[in-house]
Amino acid sequence: MATLIHNAAQLIPVATGRERVKTGQAMRELHVIPNGSLLLEGEEIAWLGPASDLPPLPSGTQVLDASGKIVIPGFVDCHTHLIFAGDRADEFEMRIEGLSYQEIAARGGGIIRTVSATRQASREQLLEATQRRLNRLLSYGVTTVEIKSGYGLSLADEVRLLEVTRDLAAEHACEVVPTFLGAHEVPPEFRQDRRGYVQLIVEEMVPVVAEGKLAEFCDVFCEQGVFDPSETERILKAAQDYGLKLKLHADEFSNQGGAELASRYGAVSADHLICISESGIEALRRSGTVAVLLPGTSWFLRVNYAPARRLIDAGVPVALATDCNPGSCMTENLPLIGSLACIHLRMLPSEVLTALTLNAAAALGRSDRIGSLEVGKQADVVICDVTDYRQLFYHFGVNHAHTVIKRGRVVVAP
Amino acid sequence: MATLIHNAAQLIPVATGRERVKTGQAMRELHVIPNGSLLLEGEEIAWLGPASDLPPLPSGTQVLDASGKIVIPGFVDCHTHLIFAGDRADEFEMRIEGLSYQEIAARGGGIIRTVSATRQASREQLLEATQRRLNRLLSYGVTTVEIKSGYGLSLADEVRLLEVTRDLAAEHACEVVPTFLGAHEVPPEFRQDRRGYVQLIVEEMVPVVAEGKLAEFCDVFCEQGVFDPSETERILKAAQDYGLKLKLHADEFSNQGGAELASRYGAVSADHLICISESGIEALRRSGTVAVLLPGTSWFLRVNYAPARRLIDAGVPVALATDCNPGSCMTENLPLIGSLACIHLRMLPSEVLTALTLNAAAALGRSDRIGSLEVGKQADVVICDVTDYRQLFYHFGVNHAHTVIKRGRVVVAP
Repeated sequence: MATLIHNAAQLIPVATGRERVKTGQAMRELHVIPNGSLLLEGEEIAWLGPASDLPPLPSGTQVLDASGKIVIPGFVDCHTHLIFAGDRADEFEMRIEGLSYQEIAARGGGIIRTVSATRQASREQLLEATQRRLNRLLSYGVTTVEIKSGYGLSLADEVRLLEVTRDLAAEHACEVVPTFLGAHEVPPEFRQDRRGYVQLIVEEMVPVVAEGKLAEFCDVFCEQGVFDPSETERILKAAQDYGLKLKLHADEFSNQGGAELASRYGAVSADHLICISESGIEALRRSGTVAVLLPGTSWFLRVNYAPARRLIDAGVPVALATDCNPGSCMTENLPLIGSLACIHLRMLPSEVLTALTLNAAAALGRSDRIGSLEVGKQADVVICDVTDYRQLFYHFGVNHAHTVIKRGRVVVAP
Repeated sequence: MATLIHNAAQLIPVATGRERVKTGQAMRELHVIPNGSLLLEGEEIAWLGPASDLPPLPSGTQVLDASGKIVIPGFVDCHTHLIFAGDRADEFEMRIEGLSYQEIAARGGGIIRTVSATRQASREQLLEATQRRLNRLLSYGVTTVEIKSGYGLSLADEVRLLEVTRDLAAEHACEVVPTFLGAHEVPPEFRQDRRGYVQLIVEEMVPVVAEGKLAEFCDVFCEQGVFDPSETERILKAAQDYGLKLKLHADEFSNQGGAELASRYGAVSADHLICISESGIEALRRSGTVAVLLPGTSWFLRVNYAPARRLIDAGVPVALATDCNPGSCMTENLPLIGSLACIHLRMLPSEVLTALTLNAAAALGRSDRIGSLEVGKQADVVICDVTDYRQLFYHFGVNHAHTVIKRGRVVVAP
């Protein structure tokens, strides 16, 4: 089965040389083909180029007219906390009224509140709520989504979240990348025994998750008052020993040397990085660890933004993601995160598009297969109803995705 | 033809006492009815209350189940520049690169660029482009939209824009309120003769627009380098003499005493107000002129925000709008403007909802008929797929509108 996406105003490969990730000036180079066409065969990209150079088509090729539209790689949301129950709209209101994070926690708010709602939710409720969020992401052209556990915080509850994620992944058009985040917070029952919780993660959770192949990555929230660098290191070490790839919530609200730690352990990505130091930037550059920036969270919480320009100028590969979660960034609109990146991180639309495709795929260790439109790569493609890629972020907040294609198959039709 | 919207998780009238506008603490009072129902007969609201108190229904009543959802008045977008051709995505990029407004203008950017594209566009192109924008607004639950002219800037071109607006209004589900904004900028052909352009507005444009009933309001961009207070006053005076109601782009980038001027002329609204003074706030409070705040524009341009809290605390009625336009705020997502107001203006979700419904209707002189769910008012209603109104702005960037009803008729179905 072949599909031709024909004569797009702009066909945007993002990469043309099998680069696995882009840094510095290369992040601006999208290799735009005006009046471009893209031929998909089976689940793969078979040909792309100017519409005028079109090769003979396989018989029975389905043709999608893309004139007046642009064609881009499927977006990749490489950092989400998509599986949870309940909402925290009241905390949003409290923050507007000026209450601090500590005051909100004292009123029963914060991560622990979502843990409680999530533990109480049935399997069906979790499945349904997460599916809705995944559907919404897909409707915006997001064809690959990372999902972290982390609202269970017991062996059974973390395993349940990862199993629901696996079951959802098996039937959803979106490609799902599961991450184990048992180290999201210390649960109430271990408040007097932090050491005991780290031990539970290291000795029970990590082995069960890894042996059950329930997650591809292990992540830790390394932060003042959450997991300190030495606790974080114990967990990363254990995860690595069990063959899990690593991610790290690093230097979000305070500098903990998180970026350095992530680099030292060869983490695939270091995320947040609002408070990264110069030595952290240098460490990421050397290790090639992808910096995943989450400007929606800074905006939602009214805190500082990560130093995107310094990271890019230093040669660190930068990706962007929603951080979709009920406490600090409740949205599935990934292109809007791109607009926030333009405004608040001063990233150019071209850099943003690279950060939401190729570099986001790299942050999930998948950029050999997705994240750009190149012959032989997986046919994850979005036709957007704009004439120039810059409009994706300039014309903000609305949904420009017109047709979404995953593995060569139309999964969202106009 | 009767329709029952039945058993909403929250039915939100916004007003219950025929208030024409809300100020101060009253902006927070939404009069939420849990498990509420709403009966529409013909184009009007016939009854509302707890589902358990439902009166006997007219035979043949269509029932829409709203359980697990909320019901709110149709949103009102009371400040847009919706009719134009072209886009300015490249200027968005230049601003990210650090170019100033002046430098962008020197490269051929700014309002005049859109004027040029708009003048060159055919009637059909303008109609189609504006219709798409109106469709998008409606999809977000916006049932009434103000549209300003202002990208014509000649008698013929301004009239053409208002005529296209009228023709579009005649067939679109959205209620359209036309505003004449010939005083949006001085066109290139009058750069050496500003006085001549003001004279053209006052002596030719205003009479033609008023006598042709092409607009309900007249607006002026009173700003340093655009129209100064004395030019503004001449135009407001002429418009008033011809029976047009008044609006004013006031104190946006500099304090020009715009709010005071709007109050003195009994303008229905004064818009932007980023640089309003204390005496301006006092003037608006006394005249009851609605302050229309446009936080999307501050966000997009990275400038300061209007002092929403001081305005509300002083007793000035506050409304919110998109300012949808190609240069400084390209979005039709009005609820997202509500989220921006929560984050940047520190307005509570309840205040935001009032500002997007009743007070926005007041800013268009229509709050006797729309903007709240009250018996006898026009049946402009949105069923939103959330369980609590705060989620409309907390769960940001996505479209929560499930069913949109205009004058008793379903115009957007799930």
